[in-house]
Amino acid sequence: MDNALHELFIQELRDILWAEEHLYKSLPKMAKAATSEDLRHAFEGHHEQTGGHIERLKQVFESIGEKSKAVKCEAMDGLLKEAEELLDDSAKGTMVRDAALIAGAQKIEHYEIATYGTLSTFAKIMGHKKAKQLLDQTLNEEKATDDKLTGIAESFVNEAAMEEK
Amino acid sequence: MDNALHELFIQELRDILWAEEHLYKSLPKMAKAATSEDLRHAFEGHHEQTGGHIERLKQVFESIGEKSKAVKCEAMDGLLKEAEELLDDSAKGTMVRDAALIAGAQKIEHYEIATYGTLSTFAKIMGHKKAKQLLDQTLNEEKATDDKLTGIAESFVNEAAMEEK
Repeated sequence: MDNALHELFIQELRDILWAEEHLYKSLPKMAKAATSEDLRHAFEGHHEQTGGHIERLKQVFESIGEKSKAVKCEAMDGLLKEAEELLDDSAKGTMVRDAALIAGAQKIEHYEIATYGTLSTFAKIMGHKKAKQLLDQTLNEEKATDDKLTGIAESFVNEAAMEEK
Repeated sequence: MDNALHELFIQELRDILWAEEHLYKSLPKMAKAATSEDLRHAFEGHHEQTGGHIERLKQVFESIGEKSKAVKCEAMDGLLKEAEELLDDSAKGTMVRDAALIAGAQKIEHYEIATYGTLSTFAKIMGHKKAKQLLDQTLNEEKATDDKLTGIAESFVNEAAMEEK
């Protein structure tokens, strides 16, 4: 297993661990900035879930006999900066701020969906069954969070934003 | 239409225009770096398609009476940096480099899928029918590209990477 694909797998695991740890720090700020209760709850729930994703990643490292380590993820760094910019440009307590929060959060979710999808494929090919199972659990939770955010956006936030000036 | 949601819509359009323009510059490098012919063709095809996405975005701006303008997208900047790092860490002419290229490219595709999805929802709510139609066309092409990359990864690249040291 000590080949180039294994190295790429480890590199991607370190990248997503950094991403999850930084998202974990940002989510309480996003929850606090949310106007609607639904969105605040969604961010609070995802914060707790993200703590679980970090634990699961540590189990993945362990399952393949590697030491858990985080390495700066340039993409998540950019995504979090962008989410903050969207926040700065919208007024506090408005529904359009919620629309901005959702837009930023869905980009983050899609980043994670792409990464866990890749990791799951790599784990499958290398026969890391335990790792694959753990990665798929998180992948499904990320997809569910993305769907939940779409639901909130469609049913509520965006139409309300139209009522405001 | 001159409300806060409209402003957010414009801001996101400027962001994705920057992202598409920079992706357009990067794709020929990615095509050149690809080992397999399938992947090289996929990148070459997506390069051409991306040129069309840029044109469509300009039409979207025009359709809502706004001047087309690109503003730096921190997220795409991070994603492209990450894709380059993945490339630097894999040896030229190996299948694992293709796996790295696909991993980076799918993150980029998911970023675009999230952004065009948001833009399409905003356009729908604000009644921008022409804009919505243009955005949905691109959204479908980005999804098809992501599927194509998954297909190449599953059928070919990753298994071949296992044969290498």
